Amino acid sequence: MTDLARATALLTIDVAAIVANWKRLSALVAPAEASAVVKADCYGLGMEHIAPALSAAGCQSFFVACVNEGIALRRILPAAVIHVLSGPLGGDEGEFAAHNLIPVLNSLAQITGWAGFAKKGSGAPAAAIHIDTGMNRLGLSETELERLAAKPEITAAIRPILVMSHLACADDADSPMNARQLTTLRRLASHLPALPQSIAASSGIFLGRGFHLGLVRPGAALYGLNPMPGRPNPMSQVVKLQGKIVQVRDVDSPQTVGYGATHRVEGKRKLAVVAVGYADGWFRSLSNRGHGMIGGMKVPVAGRISMDLTTFDVTDVPAEHAHPGAWIELIGPDLSPDRVADEAGTIGYEILTSLGRRHHRRWTGTETAKS
Amino acid sequence: MTDLARATALLTIDVAAIVANWKRLSALVAPAEASAVVKADCYGLGMEHIAPALSAAGCQSFFVACVNEGIALRRILPAAVIHVLSGPLGGDEGEFAAHNLIPVLNSLAQITGWAGFAKKGSGAPAAAIHIDTGMNRLGLSETELERLAAKPEITAAIRPILVMSHLACADDADSPMNARQLTTLRRLASHLPALPQSIAASSGIFLGRGFHLGLVRPGAALYGLNPMPGRPNPMSQVVKLQGKIVQVRDVDSPQTVGYGATHRVEGKRKLAVVAVGYADGWFRSLSNRGHGMIGGMKVPVAGRISMDLTTFDVTDVPAEHAHPGAWIELIGPDLSPDRVADEAGTIGYEILTSLGRRHHRRWTGTETAKS
Repeated sequence: MTDLARATALLTIDVAAIVANWKRLSALVAPAEASAVVKADCYGLGMEHIAPALSAAGCQSFFVACVNEGIALRRILPAAVIHVLSGPLGGDEGEFAAHNLIPVLNSLAQITGWAGFAKKGSGAPAAAIHIDTGMNRLGLSETELERLAAKPEITAAIRPILVMSHLACADDADSPMNARQLTTLRRLASHLPALPQSIAASSGIFLGRGFHLGLVRPGAALYGLNPMPGRPNPMSQVVKLQGKIVQVRDVDSPQTVGYGATHRVEGKRKLAVVAVGYADGWFRSLSNRGHGMIGGMKVPVAGRISMDLTTFDVTDVPAEHAHPGAWIELIGPDLSPDRVADEAGTIGYEILTSLGRRHHRRWTGTETAKS
Repeated sequence: MTDLARATALLTIDVAAIVANWKRLSALVAPAEASAVVKADCYGLGMEHIAPALSAAGCQSFFVACVNEGIALRRILPAAVIHVLSGPLGGDEGEFAAHNLIPVLNSLAQITGWAGFAKKGSGAPAAAIHIDTGMNRLGLSETELERLAAKPEITAAIRPILVMSHLACADDADSPMNARQLTTLRRLASHLPALPQSIAASSGIFLGRGFHLGLVRPGAALYGLNPMPGRPNPMSQVVKLQGKIVQVRDVDSPQTVGYGATHRVEGKRKLAVVAVGYADGWFRSLSNRGHGMIGGMKVPVAGRISMDLTTFDVTDVPAEHAHPGAWIELIGPDLSPDRVADEAGTIGYEILTSLGRRHHRRWTGTETAKS
């Protein structure tokens, strides 16, 4: 019996859709370069399967969060340009050199530390400089930039190839923060030598040409999340999650369902128990709020979601669809990660990165596709 | 450079504390048997490291959610009694036989299917029967039990060794559901031959002797979650999660922090950015609500939690504690998973099962401990 036949949760990732999304964004921003953000294992979807497909499609630059992810990506893509967003954290500079990883330098302390390392002549790769323009998370402040500008030998030592910043409110096109941050980046970058600049991630790309600069850094949009919340999603759907029905119960007297007895059944109802729970990343906050799709019909979550199981009310679904062994769609063409996130009280990003470990995963639409 | 030195998130699991918790419960319920629920990879904490320690301490019976988990556990514990809560889902009966896994049979259809398989003489293991007493999730209804009682040859064919049910409100000792479910189990079990019975999981154990029956099935309490919410936790803490500070920022003018600019800094503040985000299972719902501990002080989350990063306000923390490279405690002795769950709007169970994949994990207090 194959793993697939035994699986109770099936996660299908459409790599061809990811590639199509990247190509669409790449065409949209040309002549700016479109990189790909593949941190957190491609938002939980499998860097090993996705990064090679993006590279084959022409993507040359990649962003990861930390040095461990950079080392993992280097094994997959020997020739790619790999940026590590956290930069060196002290003592790990040699790893950046050994694996040819470009550190994103986020503070004056990181810059001086890296300059010291680079001066030792140990083959340090080039670097990117991150300027804070209002996110107040990582990046150099104006004061730090002024101090750096006073020491051009340090800037020369780190051989910068990119100046970047990050928008705080890009998913709200009406926010005055966006234009303000772009203006600030332009102004602060003047403290540095002329370099390619980057400020736009997925949502920022859709703020207009002025935000594309030299390079854009889409992540969420590649994986099918809507970069323009509240407007039609221009990206192709990527993820499909299905849960297997373990049992169908007929309830004919008034009873409660699940932990805490939070859901009460009044009339004659049919309940389907699916072998997916919050340990699989199907958020507990979907209890009594989320829904699934089966046979083209919407079925509501009944009661609290358990660790390994979720109960749906399938009263109106014909028995040929709702039977033990049948699949209920939990994320898919009619139920986007953004929609699930709305019902769970979070954002699509967290839905993707939380997708559990017990799913059987399939990658489709790639030469390296495997089941 | 070791993986540990490069790690930005460090998860330490005290296996000795898990064993101590199991021993305490075992002594509490004796002569009833204390099993261990190790589903979902021991609630996300690593079955491979924990199950052998429990077995060495004397635990003989284990519960997993699905057949894949059963097969994985059989590789670790060749001689243990392993129950699979979902039972066979059609076509996978041979896997139960091949790996000597006891199916928990949750419906009349599963029972008749398993009886048919067992009659083929293919070495089917014994089985457990799950009776629903009010959870309305999995388990035989009274009607199904009456129909089963009319066909004793089916019951004989499956060789049942345990009758079990599951409490819906065990964490609320005042709920009338508890006694009602126990009474219902006693009454419905009379349709079957005399067998050991089980109804209590972690919280049920603390409802009193009457709920211990032949076997108890603790999971959460083994892993340090409080089986009696609102009262002092009788269990030892198991999990410690630390995040490394990537950068410390001094902010001296009124500014906003993070995505959506939801947090506003008014005076002179010091902010620490930690390399743990919601992709690591540090829930996004902790944004502007959660806290960490450093140098014995409580530090609040400032702004929205990002995928890879969380910002804390460390203004009041001395610089010898809050500096790049230092650790902030996110779960630990002073910040239980239950407490984090309160702040995140969920339960400790979901905090544990969501702990991310990027953590560097250490198991301590076991002969098989490794770093």
